Amino acid sequence: MRTPEPMVEIHRGPFVESQHMGHAVICDGSGGVVEAWGDPDAVVLPRSSAKMIQALPLVMSGAAEAFGIGPARLALACASHQGAPMHVRAVNAWLDELGLGDDDLICGTEASRDKDLRFQMIRDGDSPCRVHNNCSGKHSGFLILTKHLGASSDYVDPAHPVQKSVRDAFEEVTGATSPGFGIDGCSAPNFATSMLGMARAMAFFASAGQRSDTMSEAAQQLVGGMIAYPELVAGDTRACTHLMRAAKEPLALKTGAEGYFVAILPHRGWGISLKIVDGATRASNSAIAALLVRIGVLDAENPEVIRFLNPPVKNWDGLVTGEIRPVAGLTGV
Amino acid sequence: MRTPEPMVEIHRGPFVESQHMGHAVICDGSGGVVEAWGDPDAVVLPRSSAKMIQALPLVMSGAAEAFGIGPARLALACASHQGAPMHVRAVNAWLDELGLGDDDLICGTEASRDKDLRFQMIRDGDSPCRVHNNCSGKHSGFLILTKHLGASSDYVDPAHPVQKSVRDAFEEVTGATSPGFGIDGCSAPNFATSMLGMARAMAFFASAGQRSDTMSEAAQQLVGGMIAYPELVAGDTRACTHLMRAAKEPLALKTGAEGYFVAILPHRGWGISLKIVDGATRASNSAIAALLVRIGVLDAENPEVIRFLNPPVKNWDGLVTGEIRPVAGLTGV
Repeated sequence: MRTPEPMVEIHRGPFVESQHMGHAVICDGSGGVVEAWGDPDAVVLPRSSAKMIQALPLVMSGAAEAFGIGPARLALACASHQGAPMHVRAVNAWLDELGLGDDDLICGTEASRDKDLRFQMIRDGDSPCRVHNNCSGKHSGFLILTKHLGASSDYVDPAHPVQKSVRDAFEEVTGATSPGFGIDGCSAPNFATSMLGMARAMAFFASAGQRSDTMSEAAQQLVGGMIAYPELVAGDTRACTHLMRAAKEPLALKTGAEGYFVAILPHRGWGISLKIVDGATRASNSAIAALLVRIGVLDAENPEVIRFLNPPVKNWDGLVTGEIRPVAGLTGV
Repeated sequence: MRTPEPMVEIHRGPFVESQHMGHAVICDGSGGVVEAWGDPDAVVLPRSSAKMIQALPLVMSGAAEAFGIGPARLALACASHQGAPMHVRAVNAWLDELGLGDDDLICGTEASRDKDLRFQMIRDGDSPCRVHNNCSGKHSGFLILTKHLGASSDYVDPAHPVQKSVRDAFEEVTGATSPGFGIDGCSAPNFATSMLGMARAMAFFASAGQRSDTMSEAAQQLVGGMIAYPELVAGDTRACTHLMRAAKEPLALKTGAEGYFVAILPHRGWGISLKIVDGATRASNSAIAALLVRIGVLDAENPEVIRFLNPPVKNWDGLVTGEIRPVAGLTGV
């Protein structure tokens, strides 16, 4: 077993104050490893980076077509959105059309990550709703599939038809039996796989346009939605949205909790999986940007890239006291 | 150079989802190493874990005595408080007596970490002040020393008499020339040393009662203040306060940003320094509690200890989805 490798450093003055280690795998469309760091066999929970896999049954089952789900809603089904007004409006409209409400979501409540809305809700004395939860789009997708299947309302139960179909899809795209699951922040099961398995899955999505089977067609639709609506996948302050917009070729990016990140590169048929072993988002943001610079998809000089690749560290008074920086060589520059 | 060692794991379901590595050194009163993990020579910025060192000149100079600074204000001078009403009132009263105000602090503004106060300020349309900054007590101490010395108001300048006296004290208690400094979150210089140097410094504080020189007497007074007022050192939701209260013998604990933590054990004359290399507070909280269980100062079964040593990980819906756990063997159990 290979150990994780240094990936991102936190500099303060002349010192490296902190350091983040990680695993990463880049796979091509045939599932071959283009490049890897750390241990490709490390078992991981991809968390929200698996959302496009969790949305496959929604499309493959015919539920998305039956309910008229277009690319924007497919993007929302794959999203960790920030609960900004545009996300809340979109999910509420979707629930309304289904004749469902906030209580039907089983994702728990989360304060909006949109500062203006969060402060407004505090001023108004409003409590966060489930629709504000970053997973409310994914759960809306689960609800539609549940309805389509005529299944019971406890759709996050690992034995529920929705989650059984998610597991089947997960094992097919990762190319391996899942060793099990953890319960995610939103109460849905999150299936485990290897770093290589997750990179293979992302390469499956990236190369889906070269195939015409049902799963590949579903994967194409989901990737198309994410690429068309980067602001619905995350939001105005978050890495997925900014880096998708800054890219020199179309790509889908998806963060996950605990330092996970994946990339889907349809022009190359490549997939990338990344895990910062300590779970830090500041490091997974920087490292995924570094890998995308390395392969020529992002420009290291673009301010929208620097914002995540190599941001300044500022103190309470706004002074720049250091910077976040990928380790030497990671960007390939 | 020894590499950092695994210290804390994040479990989710049957999986270790994330892992934190660290360095730690336990020193006795003679500066000898009792036990060490990782690299004792690793160069670190102790951040707020150095606050009792930064407060030494306040006492040694006679400023504390001249201005009638008692143990509660000495505790505040060593604090990373949460900006709760009791901290804000105490610092404001202190500034008032000095004929100074919020604008004289050079620590920058920080939103209160006390949720009730933070929400109340949002509802009232009030902006965070400098007094809410977790370092406002330390800066009040700097202001008194500045006044006592008749020095200029830019007391965070590394060339200012206050910071020069901090550096002298820092190098004396760590037993080594500092290789330099970074600028801290509150704009004051934060001097670098080794893990061993910082453990030696904490052992100096812990064993100060055995000596009667000016620096040792100042160290005793500061430790006495911290032990007498654990709620002023941090606050009701934070590890320092809870673990000091839960300990089986008097001790002073002080967290620092980026995964730092120190302990001062006067009954043994021991000092502990701890750095989680990725900077995660969840891990430094757990690891310092583990080391204190290991040496018999904390009880691993005490709910106030478990809260930081081995807390559950809960999701948005309040379900327990995993736990934070020190690596096997770290607690010595």
